[in-house]
Amino acid sequence: MRIALDVMGGDNAPDAILDGGLNAAEVLSDDDQLVLIGDEEIIREGLREAGLHNDSRFVIEATTQVIEMGDSPVTALRAKPDSSIVKMGWLGSAKKAKDQHCQAIISAGNTGACVAAAQMSMRRLPGVHRPGIAIVLPTFHGPVVVCDVGANPEPKPSHLYQYSIMAGVYAEKVLGIENPKVGVMNIGGEEGKGTPLVKETSRLCREDETLNYAGNVEGRELFNGKANVVVTEGFTGNVVLKLAEGLSAGIFQTITREAMEIDMDLAMRFEPVVKSIYKKHDYHEYGGAPLLGANGLCMICHGSSEARTITNAIKKAKMYHELKVNDAIIEALAEHEGGEKSGDQ
Amino acid sequence: MRIALDVMGGDNAPDAILDGGLNAAEVLSDDDQLVLIGDEEIIREGLREAGLHNDSRFVIEATTQVIEMGDSPVTALRAKPDSSIVKMGWLGSAKKAKDQHCQAIISAGNTGACVAAAQMSMRRLPGVHRPGIAIVLPTFHGPVVVCDVGANPEPKPSHLYQYSIMAGVYAEKVLGIENPKVGVMNIGGEEGKGTPLVKETSRLCREDETLNYAGNVEGRELFNGKANVVVTEGFTGNVVLKLAEGLSAGIFQTITREAMEIDMDLAMRFEPVVKSIYKKHDYHEYGGAPLLGANGLCMICHGSSEARTITNAIKKAKMYHELKVNDAIIEALAEHEGGEKSGDQ
Repeated sequence: MRIALDVMGGDNAPDAILDGGLNAAEVLSDDDQLVLIGDEEIIREGLREAGLHNDSRFVIEATTQVIEMGDSPVTALRAKPDSSIVKMGWLGSAKKAKDQHCQAIISAGNTGACVAAAQMSMRRLPGVHRPGIAIVLPTFHGPVVVCDVGANPEPKPSHLYQYSIMAGVYAEKVLGIENPKVGVMNIGGEEGKGTPLVKETSRLCREDETLNYAGNVEGRELFNGKANVVVTEGFTGNVVLKLAEGLSAGIFQTITREAMEIDMDLAMRFEPVVKSIYKKHDYHEYGGAPLLGANGLCMICHGSSEARTITNAIKKAKMYHELKVNDAIIEALAEHEGGEKSGDQ
Repeated sequence: MRIALDVMGGDNAPDAILDGGLNAAEVLSDDDQLVLIGDEEIIREGLREAGLHNDSRFVIEATTQVIEMGDSPVTALRAKPDSSIVKMGWLGSAKKAKDQHCQAIISAGNTGACVAAAQMSMRRLPGVHRPGIAIVLPTFHGPVVVCDVGANPEPKPSHLYQYSIMAGVYAEKVLGIENPKVGVMNIGGEEGKGTPLVKETSRLCREDETLNYAGNVEGRELFNGKANVVVTEGFTGNVVLKLAEGLSAGIFQTITREAMEIDMDLAMRFEPVVKSIYKKHDYHEYGGAPLLGANGLCMICHGSSEARTITNAIKKAKMYHELKVNDAIIEALAEHEGGEKSGDQ
């Protein structure tokens, strides 16, 4: 398969991103290609240093512009046609010639720009109303897939219903969760709670007997194993994701500070505990978040991705491709009777 | 002042709630009255046991019905006219005779029912579009007021703008935060991010020069001191609140479990650290969350309130009353020029 990597996107770009791509050398098979998009000099130098400059699996796609994290996505795509993200989207288009088309595109850059570029060039899988970003939250009861976390800020119930199916396929195929329990993020456990959007989404999910529907999931239940997949509109999903990150980091900092005040020795001994927990709940492990429903694979990585995050994203992209997750999504959408009856797109 | 307490509402009702009310004996002044609403026998027995049965500051308001946590609010208010929550709302009405009217009503019961009862009987302060629940989140950088967390699930920008003013007054008067920084919960730091609702809310806040506007607040920034007051629509607010609770509890459990696996002695020594942190970040301290904008004070306490939560809520209610927070809110809304120009109610 061919994978395109935006070397210029992310807080630690280009160095960490490039390293992550180069470290994928051991993951890529002989007929894989990794297209490194970005500053030609930097990439060429990196390949040389890693001794990979003659490895035909690594290809350079030179660009001269960079979309910054703070840029307005749509404006930036127009204003920076030679940016790594625009070129990445372009390589992801299924209309490209076979030797140019990349089955997966990966970026840790401006999320909005990546989503917009992917939507424009990749288009949607047959039957999909709107793509949604599916992030994996590491919890104490195993990974939980939350979809959407920002691609679709004002969805319709039929979109969220489709996320439950698509993210369910992803959880089953990629995370290995058998018959995943699917829930709808809501502000109360009882049916009939929440906004018209979530009420109608719950109804669609409940009435689909082939779905393993776990009911409403409240904020506090996201971490107690009630569901393996939680669907929500992108705004709340994005807040949830960032809140979980910020709060966890804050709690560990507070504990360390507090322990140091009480007992310096205790603080030292606490370190391996923190490390062990971090290791078990490490979002870098999951590499990136797929834009489910796109006709291809767009993997959006965390802005603060490190080299290993990118290498893991490449691994996951290969897995996603080999397991034919998109085919399974098309099939699942067609199978679930509600796929059609949900009506309004 | 007269304060009405719903003795029957909450996971630990009636015992813990009644205890919390009785423990307020030392907080109430001679001309205060605490109206205990609920099962007459239980309350009478509690007063007798506490030696308060002849204390004229404690009054019993007997009711025979209870609205359960899972009841549908509007249906329950209609179906249970002799419930403690209906009676509580009724006592909060400013139209009541002076010897019946309660300036504050407090419940740890069904939030939706409390809000509906308060809205129906108390009505709104002059100039207020929609009341919102303002919760205090204890963070590592001090308390943060989040408004709304569930009273108004589909607000307009003018409502959120008013929350920034009302919650700002509350933060200043009750929490003692001088000139609080106000932010809008959003999915990106830059202006122009997010849904039309938050974009327009940001504009209203930004253009109000008398507001100490801190800009957009992302999920991860809720805990880093960027703002003292964060406004959001009730759905996201409620998810945030419960997520923060669930995640913190989960992290502490995980740490304890992990520490026990690595080193039992370490786990034991870790206990005082946890206790110290809990003490500094204890939501029971804040008692309850006021329904800002109601013509009176409706304090909504956590479903799992303990006796001390209720006693603290009574303390806060007295403080709110004595500091004339509602008068300050009316004044602030009138002062902020946007109060009028925001237009659509």
